[in-house]
Amino acid sequence: MSGTLYAVGLGPGDPELLTIKGQRLLRELPVIFLPAQEERDSLARKIVEPWTDAARLRELSFKMSKKPEENRARWREHAATIAQVVGGGQDAAFVTEGDPMLYSTFLHVYGQLLANHPEVHVEIVPGVSSVTAGAAAAHIALADERRRVAVVPATGEVMHAVATFDTVVILKVSAAVDAVLKALNVTGRMGDAIYVERAGWPNQRIVREVETIRKQKLDYFGQVIVTR
Amino acid sequence: MSGTLYAVGLGPGDPELLTIKGQRLLRELPVIFLPAQEERDSLARKIVEPWTDAARLRELSFKMSKKPEENRARWREHAATIAQVVGGGQDAAFVTEGDPMLYSTFLHVYGQLLANHPEVHVEIVPGVSSVTAGAAAAHIALADERRRVAVVPATGEVMHAVATFDTVVILKVSAAVDAVLKALNVTGRMGDAIYVERAGWPNQRIVREVETIRKQKLDYFGQVIVTR
Repeated sequence: MSGTLYAVGLGPGDPELLTIKGQRLLRELPVIFLPAQEERDSLARKIVEPWTDAARLRELSFKMSKKPEENRARWREHAATIAQVVGGGQDAAFVTEGDPMLYSTFLHVYGQLLANHPEVHVEIVPGVSSVTAGAAAAHIALADERRRVAVVPATGEVMHAVATFDTVVILKVSAAVDAVLKALNVTGRMGDAIYVERAGWPNQRIVREVETIRKQKLDYFGQVIVTR
Repeated sequence: MSGTLYAVGLGPGDPELLTIKGQRLLRELPVIFLPAQEERDSLARKIVEPWTDAARLRELSFKMSKKPEENRARWREHAATIAQVVGGGQDAAFVTEGDPMLYSTFLHVYGQLLANHPEVHVEIVPGVSSVTAGAAAAHIALADERRRVAVVPATGEVMHAVATFDTVVILKVSAAVDAVLKALNVTGRMGDAIYVERAGWPNQRIVREVETIRKQKLDYFGQVIVTR
């Protein structure tokens, strides 16, 4: 009898933006897999800790390598670890910042689970995404009526999105600041843009003169919202 | 001394997907404005009721008219009602399905508040969006790495989005089924599409043969997710 792996979205950072369902699962489940990045503070840990105890937490390293095959090997290993626990009949959570289906750490492991351990039963528990949390912090209506929204990582095709969509949310801006600013300049949309980082955290920061971020130290989760 | 109006996102329908912050505010705030649509059951009411009492609920009608000026007049009236309560020093919530900044009822009132009652202090409390709840229900990874996501209402420019984005979430499909199916056919992406409605509700429905929805009765909140 296999257990269930719950992929739990923890929300964008404010611990109060965890869902009631996420809170319940963290209280109840016997094993909680916690992805750990070495480059930055564990936001996930801060959100999880009030509802669980150290004995149920199992940290999995997601330190990124420049070699894709090393990353894949690590994710495959984590998937095997999870399959062993859940396949043995225990329920478990895999927690992830934001929402599990949108640019999350979980997706790396999920791909390996589907490929190598398809018998593991997975339930996805959505969370509040940084996309709308950033908009909330900056009081920006992303879309109403017929308007469309594009969500793009800074390392993706930003220019095309900014040129063709009224509203664009550009994520992880620190990874490609120059490309983002160039896209805003070329399309004439610098004036439509606002920079938001750590939305809803005590040290939240909103920059309306987006040009100025070029010379600033930026948080890993910083985003630019472009809107008319 | 003005109070604060909290725009509270209630999430996509499952009452457990309300955030802890939303739950706290519903328990604490003396006035809770509840938008009411006559065409469909009040999902919002079901999510709100466990945490509040009838005496604190104030229903506002959002019955839509075909005349835009009648709708605007109603929204202006609601904004005045809210401004009176909050301007008088009371805190209040305005609850809304999904997230307040993305295709929500709140945005209608927010526009009128900004235009006519800029003194009202507003705080936005984000919620889980149906965009990621639908993806969770259907086990669809919306985007990882450099992939981009477009979110489009069915009555918007669907064809362009489907032609240029790997991942597209088309909302409120029932409003324009023929246009959505045509866009999927013309772009050759019918096979990439899945239809999801009432994600995470007891009567959730997922349709993998999307062509067949043309002749089905569809829920107001149905969505099509297109992905590679």
